[in-house]
Amino acid sequence: MAQNIYDDADFFSGYSGLRRSITGLGGMPEWPTMRAMVGTVTDKRVVDLGCGFGWFSRWAAAAGASSVVGIDLSDNMLARALADTEDTRISYERQDLETLVLPASFDIAYSALTLHYVEHLGELLRTLYEALSAGGRFVFSVEHPIYTAPSSPGFIADEAGNQVWPIDRYLDEGQRTTDWLTPGVIKQHRTIGTYLAELRSARFDLVDLIEWGPTAEQIDLAPNWRTERDRPPFLLVSADKR
Amino acid sequence: MAQNIYDDADFFSGYSGLRRSITGLGGMPEWPTMRAMVGTVTDKRVVDLGCGFGWFSRWAAAAGASSVVGIDLSDNMLARALADTEDTRISYERQDLETLVLPASFDIAYSALTLHYVEHLGELLRTLYEALSAGGRFVFSVEHPIYTAPSSPGFIADEAGNQVWPIDRYLDEGQRTTDWLTPGVIKQHRTIGTYLAELRSARFDLVDLIEWGPTAEQIDLAPNWRTERDRPPFLLVSADKR
Repeated sequence: MAQNIYDDADFFSGYSGLRRSITGLGGMPEWPTMRAMVGTVTDKRVVDLGCGFGWFSRWAAAAGASSVVGIDLSDNMLARALADTEDTRISYERQDLETLVLPASFDIAYSALTLHYVEHLGELLRTLYEALSAGGRFVFSVEHPIYTAPSSPGFIADEAGNQVWPIDRYLDEGQRTTDWLTPGVIKQHRTIGTYLAELRSARFDLVDLIEWGPTAEQIDLAPNWRTERDRPPFLLVSADKR
Repeated sequence: MAQNIYDDADFFSGYSGLRRSITGLGGMPEWPTMRAMVGTVTDKRVVDLGCGFGWFSRWAAAAGASSVVGIDLSDNMLARALADTEDTRISYERQDLETLVLPASFDIAYSALTLHYVEHLGELLRTLYEALSAGGRFVFSVEHPIYTAPSSPGFIADEAGNQVWPIDRYLDEGQRTTDWLTPGVIKQHRTIGTYLAELRSARFDLVDLIEWGPTAEQIDLAPNWRTERDRPPFLLVSADKR
């Protein structure tokens, strides 16, 4: 079973205070890019893997999806998602993505910043591929491998005083334990090559792969985002079932 | 026109002393992986972009290719390639890859550690796609973007004394000037996302993308390769024309 860190009281309290938790999709600077990768959802059946507070699930229903299933492991997240959701086309399920079961068919699958918590990615992708309709699309974001690789993931100064991101262990994949909001958050580090190989092995066709960083306009609005261009925070991927 | 650093006397002298220059493909630890990506060359027409001393061109001819064209910008490299080549199925041409012309058709294109010197990658890929036969394959290696990104590309010690690779400017693509063998070597930094987007734009179908590092067996034989697993030196890609 995956670590259920979102049901840790301290972690959940910290997470609830993040800008993206308070303002939803509008507080996710990568959202405009992901929305373009998702494309139109009108009359489509949507599944949201790691739905959290349900921001994307509610967006999809409001944008015309015929049904939306939001899946998460955290009781904390699902309780708030339920409390914030009125649209009856949306349902929520508590499931561990390590052992996901998808009895229904879907046209669009979406997963934001969740798969780097999943150990058995290959099994999840095969389950998802089976459940997608022909022509269906999977769009996901994960923490970028440059972000997850380091033993000590934090900017440091080099000898000249320039701020740099200290890479090590990039090719040695597997568990990383970091302190983010609380100590001991467990993530799975994978290279871009491995994400692509796992998609190919599950028979997905790659559509797009974007190493995301903020635009100049976004940096003007939020200058502290500038260093995200030094090492990308997120990897965004879309892949189709043909 | 691309920088012709291989015709700089100091650079060429240094390059000629590298293990991979002296022992050829056997001195390239990534060669077994690239050979598998190339597949069989029997009765195929092969082009070698940035052929250098002609090691791959001679291997392809010896492995049964019907013809091999090796292309390079450096007179130094081509002179030695010619001197070392007897097989009449191999010909060499001096061309700048920035303005490549390929009048013949090819079944396999190969390029080792050359494309990170090319500024107009999109034009080169379109030229290559046109010249490849249906079902043809392009296999190339470049310096990995993690390797090319930094302002100061060299390992440093972090506060705990661990050796780390200092990433900055990863998302800011374009020219990097580094000191390798001689000062002022000009390379083009591109992200993995951009390599994939350029291939897609030229209508190639991605087959494989490998962020290469040495195996445990290779490190046993050459312990100084161990740190290459901390940040991958090479990106290997194969793509097909369907």
